Amino acid sequence: MRAFQCSPEKAVEYLAMNEGLSVIHAEEMLTASTTQPWKPWRCLRWMVKECVQRTQAAVSSVLGLHWLCYVALGVVTALVSFAMNLTVAKLLRAHNWLYSQLEGHAVLQFLCWTLYPASLCALSTSFSHSICPHSAGSGVPEVRCMLAGVELPDYLSISHLFAKLVGLTCALAAGSTVFLGKVGPFVHLSTMLGAYLHRLCASAAGKEEQKPKQEMLVVSAAVGVASCFGAPISGVLFSVEVMGTHYAVRDYYPSLLAAACGALTFRLLSVLSREQETVQALFKTTYSTSLPFQPVEILAFAALGLLCGALSCVYLFCHRWILQFVRTNRILAKIMATEKALYSGGVVFLLACATFPLSAGHFMAAKLSMSQLLSSLLEETQGYVLSQNASVPQGAEDLLWQAWSPSGTTIFVTLGVFLFMKLWMLVLACTLPIPAGYFMPVFIYGAAVGRLLGEGLTHVSANGTSSQGTAPAINPGGYALAGAAAFSGAVTHSLSPALLALELTGQHTHAVPVLLATLLANALARSHHRPSFYDAIAIVKKLPHPLSLVRTCPKLLSVRLGQVIQAPTTVVEKQSGVTHIQQLLNSSPESVFPVVDCQESRVLLGSVSRLQLEAFLHAHRDGGLAKKLVDHWSFQPVKIQLSAEATFKQAYSVLTAVREQCLFVTERGRLVGVITWSEIKRIMEEFTKATTLHHQTAERMKSNHIPTS
Amino acid sequence: MRAFQCSPEKAVEYLAMNEGLSVIHAEEMLTASTTQPWKPWRCLRWMVKECVQRTQAAVSSVLGLHWLCYVALGVVTALVSFAMNLTVAKLLRAHNWLYSQLEGHAVLQFLCWTLYPASLCALSTSFSHSICPHSAGSGVPEVRCMLAGVELPDYLSISHLFAKLVGLTCALAAGSTVFLGKVGPFVHLSTMLGAYLHRLCASAAGKEEQKPKQEMLVVSAAVGVASCFGAPISGVLFSVEVMGTHYAVRDYYPSLLAAACGALTFRLLSVLSREQETVQALFKTTYSTSLPFQPVEILAFAALGLLCGALSCVYLFCHRWILQFVRTNRILAKIMATEKALYSGGVVFLLACATFPLSAGHFMAAKLSMSQLLSSLLEETQGYVLSQNASVPQGAEDLLWQAWSPSGTTIFVTLGVFLFMKLWMLVLACTLPIPAGYFMPVFIYGAAVGRLLGEGLTHVSANGTSSQGTAPAINPGGYALAGAAAFSGAVTHSLSPALLALELTGQHTHAVPVLLATLLANALARSHHRPSFYDAIAIVKKLPHPLSLVRTCPKLLSVRLGQVIQAPTTVVEKQSGVTHIQQLLNSSPESVFPVVDCQESRVLLGSVSRLQLEAFLHAHRDGGLAKKLVDHWSFQPVKIQLSAEATFKQAYSVLTAVREQCLFVTERGRLVGVITWSEIKRIMEEFTKATTLHHQTAERMKSNHIPTS
Repeated sequence: MRAFQCSPEKAVEYLAMNEGLSVIHAEEMLTASTTQPWKPWRCLRWMVKECVQRTQAAVSSVLGLHWLCYVALGVVTALVSFAMNLTVAKLLRAHNWLYSQLEGHAVLQFLCWTLYPASLCALSTSFSHSICPHSAGSGVPEVRCMLAGVELPDYLSISHLFAKLVGLTCALAAGSTVFLGKVGPFVHLSTMLGAYLHRLCASAAGKEEQKPKQEMLVVSAAVGVASCFGAPISGVLFSVEVMGTHYAVRDYYPSLLAAACGALTFRLLSVLSREQETVQALFKTTYSTSLPFQPVEILAFAALGLLCGALSCVYLFCHRWILQFVRTNRILAKIMATEKALYSGGVVFLLACATFPLSAGHFMAAKLSMSQLLSSLLEETQGYVLSQNASVPQGAEDLLWQAWSPSGTTIFVTLGVFLFMKLWMLVLACTLPIPAGYFMPVFIYGAAVGRLLGEGLTHVSANGTSSQGTAPAINPGGYALAGAAAFSGAVTHSLSPALLALELTGQHTHAVPVLLATLLANALARSHHRPSFYDAIAIVKKLPHPLSLVRTCPKLLSVRLGQVIQAPTTVVEKQSGVTHIQQLLNSSPESVFPVVDCQESRVLLGSVSRLQLEAFLHAHRDGGLAKKLVDHWSFQPVKIQLSAEATFKQAYSVLTAVREQCLFVTERGRLVGVITWSEIKRIMEEFTKATTLHHQTAERMKSNHIPTS
Repeated sequence: MRAFQCSPEKAVEYLAMNEGLSVIHAEEMLTASTTQPWKPWRCLRWMVKECVQRTQAAVSSVLGLHWLCYVALGVVTALVSFAMNLTVAKLLRAHNWLYSQLEGHAVLQFLCWTLYPASLCALSTSFSHSICPHSAGSGVPEVRCMLAGVELPDYLSISHLFAKLVGLTCALAAGSTVFLGKVGPFVHLSTMLGAYLHRLCASAAGKEEQKPKQEMLVVSAAVGVASCFGAPISGVLFSVEVMGTHYAVRDYYPSLLAAACGALTFRLLSVLSREQETVQALFKTTYSTSLPFQPVEILAFAALGLLCGALSCVYLFCHRWILQFVRTNRILAKIMATEKALYSGGVVFLLACATFPLSAGHFMAAKLSMSQLLSSLLEETQGYVLSQNASVPQGAEDLLWQAWSPSGTTIFVTLGVFLFMKLWMLVLACTLPIPAGYFMPVFIYGAAVGRLLGEGLTHVSANGTSSQGTAPAINPGGYALAGAAAFSGAVTHSLSPALLALELTGQHTHAVPVLLATLLANALARSHHRPSFYDAIAIVKKLPHPLSLVRTCPKLLSVRLGQVIQAPTTVVEKQSGVTHIQQLLNSSPESVFPVVDCQESRVLLGSVSRLQLEAFLHAHRDGGLAKKLVDHWSFQPVKIQLSAEATFKQAYSVLTAVREQCLFVTERGRLVGVITWSEIKRIMEEFTKATTLHHQTAERMKSNHIPTS
């Protein structure tokens, strides 16, 4: 306001002298104040801007701005993760309190048990769908696509971030009834945060960069896992695995740095909130370290790995079937199209009925929350022995075990019921159109499988050696750990769960058996080119992810470029004038244009960027209509050319390796096509569509054939 | 022998009927027996071959042969590692026994202490040098080169394997006097084993493949670390880091599988040899898990990381200086050229004099072996407190501590002497021309740095809180762990030592501080583009490793191909006849030849492989001298072309990404060069030579200038 009360020159002098602004800045400020008089607080804004720029210059002289960006990403993601955990815990406690207050009124308890999660999930669906229709599901398949190089700008927007955040919190607050997790959406959330921070950094550095760099996405994927579980190294391994074909080693250090910052912040926050005394593992276990397992037990762990691998095949088959069923069944497809919230509410109500503690829920530890389930399964205490001697003094840990062996039932019955019920419930929950993760449920399911085997072995070894007196102590918790890693690894076709299991529990004594079980389970699950959990979703959602599509159409990678490429419509001729270039820029959104000698022969001469063309137009805007591009500009030479004989896989590898935005396809010097990421996406979509049509036709013919025969 | 006693037809029938051989095999056998009558045991050999082929067919129907190859690599490497450990332990025990028998005779003890390691190292030098001159040193810089795609066949030969094996065993048997490790050469050994197994598999599958695949080398690198320490996951991380630019994600599963097999075998062998009761970490620690460290101690860990980073810069500077000094000093260069064994013996004698337990060795725990040093430094017991109360009951663990606080000296003095002495000894040991690793010594040195800080903090906190009575127990072992990871990570510019430290000790409670210290130390060590330990060796040895060379000549990556490429001498003309092709094949060893329309215009038409040309010659060997290649053969089309404007970095990335053997460089359709791995190597060598010459000239001018001024 002050700037208006004196002459401009004086104002510049005053500002430059008294407020420490540079003369140029002060002048800029005054120019802006006269040209944009409707913006308030000019002086303050300019001072803040000046301060920020100075701090930034000082900081970036010591440390690159992008490093700060990585650290900030880790810290912010961890803060979001912790805040979400707190909110979810409060909502869960409210539900538990209400349920316990209604003790004695079975009907009211039933309503409380079923309607609370149902309404939360319905809310989650309607909220996230109304803000961003794409926000349902895990998000990992989409992140895999983006990491493979495909641009999906809808999946990195702020509104999506908001929708996912609120939707996920509601879904998690529905508790173990719905049995959904956090890690998948969190990887996606972290990617969105990363993209936003990258834009912020770019604008702070004065650059106009809209597209997030590949590095940032890789780092974000690692941070997502790390700040969800406080497990930095498995976060980095996850980002290596999720990359698809090539992992750029230069992303390794930033990933680990950001992941370590995220994990440290996440764990320090629980120290600050007095949950823990120091920075420790999330689900810390304290198995006996003197003899964690007999060497011969390694065979049992290997068998557990194979069992988990076989079970994962069953689960994945059911999952693929139900995804297809929901899409093809007419009634369900109609409901899903119009009444998503109703569907969510209905399904969750059904799930809640099945887990009601006064019915079947009594035999499946339904009252425990997700984290309590995992902790109880990982405990060292032998449930079988506990249920035999009911008179042992019951500590706080054994309270968890009371849930697993309620009045008179052994742990084998409860674990069996749990495994049977949760299998179909898990498959059903995957169809819910809410933002939620599917990793943690699978992890817990695997832990239950391992626990069952472990308890069985304990039982057998106790019976077998009861005559000799000294039974070798088998730790069923170790089997639960290995089972969790093996099953979740087999379902997602990845090995990072093995390290995640170790980092989550801080239990390094079982490193070798856990790794062995995960490797064997993976070997079984990957055989015969079966699609993984994420592949199945990518195929159903028709996401352009090359490695997933290979599962359905293995021919894609070896297809010749000549068969699929389209002739480029937007080329710059050597002799192009101002008018033509103006038209070209208006009609096409591309950022790089090929330069050919003439439209007929199309001999490729080089390439020219959009910015260069705009600069050319700017230089000749006043009247130079006769100017030719060739007289005033030198093109970039073309560095890498593909021929029409190159395969799709080669084009994809080169594009990923050199991280270029476009490659030219030539045949004896003539331009026949341009490979960009959007072109790659188009090719994949068309190819999949063609293959799917082909498949559907074949299937229809088959199904028509069967009744007539 | 039997086959000669009857007619051939009968023999075939007999063999086919009675010995289960197929008729074709039996006939082949007889043909061979008549054409190669000098080979004995024909029948037996053929039966064995038949058996092997049947087993192979049965196995490969279930499992790919290459998977068996990976598993075998892990198991064999672990067996070699364990056998070497056993031999070294026996040799060390012999030395200790001799030394203890000479108690009371100081001169004899001195001779025993010094001559034993000196003669072992002299033996190691002369043996390994006489079998394979390249076998000295760690081998990791060479492995990095091979992983980057450069072919170094000398470094994968069987004689090299043998030289390295024996040389390394002798070097390790010299004990902590020489202070050298095992992991570097073991990575190299594993690579050689992998290459050999790959050749074996290829010949078993009936393929003639001489060059080991890139996959096998990556897997071998992981297996080397895993079977040396029993640490599979850090082995895989090591192989990711050592890859340079791109890590192919498809190598991840085989690497982890082979590494897990290696680690499991290595740890099971120690169970079988009654060293351990079950599969556990190599240097297992059992820190208190209830409160491993106070949250505020994280700051101390961060400071330790920075300290280790700074120290690593000092160490690396000394290392570079001495490498340069040994090469440039006239007397030393002469000795190194002719009398390598004398040099080794002399240096080791000097080192042994310095560590003689009755002199300075008394104050630096010289009697402990490498593994005892590491175990003692990682112990939870507080050395400061121990040395205060000498009356505490002394268990087996405290015996190690007696070495660190001998009569009247505190642990601070011994650690200080150790750190000061070992710094120059370590630098000096790096010049020894023997096959030995430099990772473990650096790891132990870092542990000593951490221990010193930890003991200091214990001392301060004990003094500060002695008035209040209850001192918060600081665990100096945790600092040793973090220091080891941070210092070794900073020296090698890698982060896998952080995970290695955790896997070696099985101590997951300190994951976050160890990671933090390693990250900070790395940040400091990598700043200002300082070369790492391996970079320095690669630069001095003039190895064609792109990422190392970037440290000396950063221009290499951005140099245009047009500036460095040579016109190809061996091209096939479209009109080439039989005679010309015969000449070409005789004169050139290349496996792929470019096809041009004629020698003058050199328009690239496609490529043709050596095998195709040989087949062409074979088809027209009798008289068809007038046949032209173009009439009878279709060429492979060229899929990827580079232009002369592409940079060296782009050529390198494309070659790595598509794993092709050659790329063609064209300019408007004309062939101007061929990029193969040997061409890449030539360019790098020439460029380095030019830069070195330039440097040397500049330095000579500078040194000439100084005296005159």
